[in-house]
Amino acid sequence: MAITSRKEDYSARYNDLVQQAGLAENSAVKGCMVIKPYGYAIWEKMRDILDAMFKKTGHQNAYFPLFIPKSFFAKEASHVEGFAKECWVVTHYRLKNKVDGKGIEVDPASKLEEPLIVRPTSETIIWDSYKDWVHSYRDLPLLINQRANVTRAEMRTRPFLRTSEFLRQEGHTAHASAEEAHDEAMKMIQVYHDFSQHFMALFSYRGEKPAHERFAGAVHTYTFEPMMQDFKALQAWTSHDLWQNFAKAFDVKFLNKQNELEYAYATSRGVSTRLIGGLIMTHSDDKGLVLPPALAPIHLVVVPIFKSDEDLQEILNYLQSELEKIQKADFAIESDFLWTWKSAISVKFDLDTQKTPGRKYAEYELKWVPLRIAIGKRDVQQWIVEIFRRDTGEKLQVNISELATVVLRLLSEIQTNLFKKHETFTREHTFEVDRFEDIKSRIDQGFVLAPWDGTKESAEKIQEDLKATIRCLPFGREDGKVLFAKSY
Amino acid sequence: MAITSRKEDYSARYNDLVQQAGLAENSAVKGCMVIKPYGYAIWEKMRDILDAMFKKTGHQNAYFPLFIPKSFFAKEASHVEGFAKECWVVTHYRLKNKVDGKGIEVDPASKLEEPLIVRPTSETIIWDSYKDWVHSYRDLPLLINQRANVTRAEMRTRPFLRTSEFLRQEGHTAHASAEEAHDEAMKMIQVYHDFSQHFMALFSYRGEKPAHERFAGAVHTYTFEPMMQDFKALQAWTSHDLWQNFAKAFDVKFLNKQNELEYAYATSRGVSTRLIGGLIMTHSDDKGLVLPPALAPIHLVVVPIFKSDEDLQEILNYLQSELEKIQKADFAIESDFLWTWKSAISVKFDLDTQKTPGRKYAEYELKWVPLRIAIGKRDVQQWIVEIFRRDTGEKLQVNISELATVVLRLLSEIQTNLFKKHETFTREHTFEVDRFEDIKSRIDQGFVLAPWDGTKESAEKIQEDLKATIRCLPFGREDGKVLFAKSY
Repeated sequence: MAITSRKEDYSARYNDLVQQAGLAENSAVKGCMVIKPYGYAIWEKMRDILDAMFKKTGHQNAYFPLFIPKSFFAKEASHVEGFAKECWVVTHYRLKNKVDGKGIEVDPASKLEEPLIVRPTSETIIWDSYKDWVHSYRDLPLLINQRANVTRAEMRTRPFLRTSEFLRQEGHTAHASAEEAHDEAMKMIQVYHDFSQHFMALFSYRGEKPAHERFAGAVHTYTFEPMMQDFKALQAWTSHDLWQNFAKAFDVKFLNKQNELEYAYATSRGVSTRLIGGLIMTHSDDKGLVLPPALAPIHLVVVPIFKSDEDLQEILNYLQSELEKIQKADFAIESDFLWTWKSAISVKFDLDTQKTPGRKYAEYELKWVPLRIAIGKRDVQQWIVEIFRRDTGEKLQVNISELATVVLRLLSEIQTNLFKKHETFTREHTFEVDRFEDIKSRIDQGFVLAPWDGTKESAEKIQEDLKATIRCLPFGREDGKVLFAKSY
Repeated sequence: MAITSRKEDYSARYNDLVQQAGLAENSAVKGCMVIKPYGYAIWEKMRDILDAMFKKTGHQNAYFPLFIPKSFFAKEASHVEGFAKECWVVTHYRLKNKVDGKGIEVDPASKLEEPLIVRPTSETIIWDSYKDWVHSYRDLPLLINQRANVTRAEMRTRPFLRTSEFLRQEGHTAHASAEEAHDEAMKMIQVYHDFSQHFMALFSYRGEKPAHERFAGAVHTYTFEPMMQDFKALQAWTSHDLWQNFAKAFDVKFLNKQNELEYAYATSRGVSTRLIGGLIMTHSDDKGLVLPPALAPIHLVVVPIFKSDEDLQEILNYLQSELEKIQKADFAIESDFLWTWKSAISVKFDLDTQKTPGRKYAEYELKWVPLRIAIGKRDVQQWIVEIFRRDTGEKLQVNISELATVVLRLLSEIQTNLFKKHETFTREHTFEVDRFEDIKSRIDQGFVLAPWDGTKESAEKIQEDLKATIRCLPFGREDGKVLFAKSY
């Protein structure tokens, strides 16, 4: 099936890519997606690199219940406004056979005294536990991360971008001082930045959300807003300074160094499978999916062209020592938090004899394998290998003895180039205007940096008139301009 | 707090260990536990080793929805009997503010047309997807694993052993022939066996469940039943041959090599955080938790005894080169499925000056760190290091230059010895009797291998009279004796 072109219908194109590259599909449950093996393999890479980063920065994993008592949401006043409305509610704990013997029904006798909410986020249930964990400043900081599924009762959903259930990493920390909590919230934005730049190859604007766009219960929300190919912003990650709001709601006090009881300070943050949507809408091209090599499930595919088992054996023998070198080598990435991160290079041999080479090539281009080697007897006779580079479409003929070296170099080059490309694209489509009224002329072509009078009213007017919102107050801007964009 | 002794009250002792070693705690939601960082660190190790084993045997990860339409459970007749009754039911998707402004309530207008079940197991939702994935024998086998939380509406719960929510790995495979499906179910029991023996240090009886104890929807259920310290069996893992039952229920047909439409063959299997309960009840001793080194979050703790910063610096310098060797070395385990599995050795320095060494020792013994070095100036002057071995309580004085070598050797020894100890314990408490009536005399002292007439009635009578059940029909027994035990 053809993929809808970018210009024709960007939204249809996105859905085509998700489906045809085998990343995810809709399930029988409205708004819930099935993450297919290829999509999950990408998430695994992201999840594990992030996990390593969180551990390097002192965080530990733990796991808290999926179900949250309804009353918990009412404890933090602004939290309930932001979250408690559109959520899945468990009201019963048993089914029974119907009296007529035809099927099963909810047993009315099993009604819960208090309904349970299927977690949309975990601040409340976690701070209810912290009450028993935190007694003295010596128990702090608590730096906890949870890998979990969370749910939202979303009515209009799109795979990865907005789903009723998604997978995520959520961090929940407790601190002995406001400064330390603030530093943590800022540090995690740096971690996200590092991951985005070095692994996802995403350029991005970072900054603070305006007050009216903060997370429910936060005093500061920091955000990361990369530009998608259709110029919309994707809120990819957020990090929140929650002050003492959850400590007060759940009565989490500690004895500080002055031996006085004080409420603990909180932060929280989250990053989810939504990022996969971000990858798709950042890098993909006319041939299909494009992934930074750091997150690609397969790095190199070898397609031998052979007529007999002898030919095949000859080709395999020819490649053997170089492929061994590749498999012993590591693909390395420099990161501010992980220093040198290393990953094995994943090589796939495609020996399927039922598909033509052409069909194989198209499939690997659609699903994105950064490097491909198609190799026949003639190459063996000439001591060469032809490497196809998926991002540029170039074919490189190299001497067999150089294969491993070239593969490693190309993977690094592709990784770097994807970031540069996205940075250039974003900068070329970011416009600075000097008058608030000029936002309109540019908003359909990219991000707009414009002055803002700081009122919620003017932000709402822009939203009404142009469907654009303030994505962030970028860090380090002295002119006070803020970033406007349409968004997912 | 003291831990209840094994003889006094084994059940209270279990709860004490879980709590005092910081593994888990109860939450505000009935039956749902919080897995604390130390408990989660153990699960992470288990989960990741299993994940590597599943990948080595050709399985891929994917993720399916948490919510399952109620009607799905009714599609497989025996499945509904086994599972659909005690489960959490989502009936609404929105809350609203109460009219009186005091709190929130379930919005009656948000009632779902069809209630959703929070997954107790995923066969139904997964086979509903397989319908679109399987068309030809060339699409098979499908070897999928899911890492997920699952729920049961349990009324009487105990941390790890029986909880309303738990974490697990569930495998769901589809095959083109009955033989292949059967082989898969058997192979996964071998994978579990390998993991149990080499990583968890568990000896165990493996075999098939009698027909009346099969998983809901299975034609064969294979099981793994290690003996706990109180002589009860723990059903630690199961692997099911599901025949075509789910394919028929969800209409999953494929074109076989003869070009005929045929229903696909299924297997499923599961392993969960319950295993942590198994570890606790297998290895722990009077001092506290005991873990096989392969699964221990910390391998070696160093407690320097010092009066000044200079003393401390001297001690650290003294240890440095050997500790570097340790950190470069790997703790290696031979496994049938992973060949040589390697893990970094985790070393903790305890520089806390507020706790006495004695208190630190007690804590590390309770939480289990297999090796401990307490080191002061005198050791440095004598070029020695004293290593405390937690499992035997021995103290070994070794020359500083031997430290790394001895640490590696001891970790392997402890790993091996724990398995041998459990094997000996299990064999010593397994009794063979020749008459069905003799089960009674032995059932409180261990497992009993006894003849069985094959009827459900006699099994039920034993259960009623002795609270014992048939745990399995052990593999490879020609005399047809089956294994009876009390169980968790």
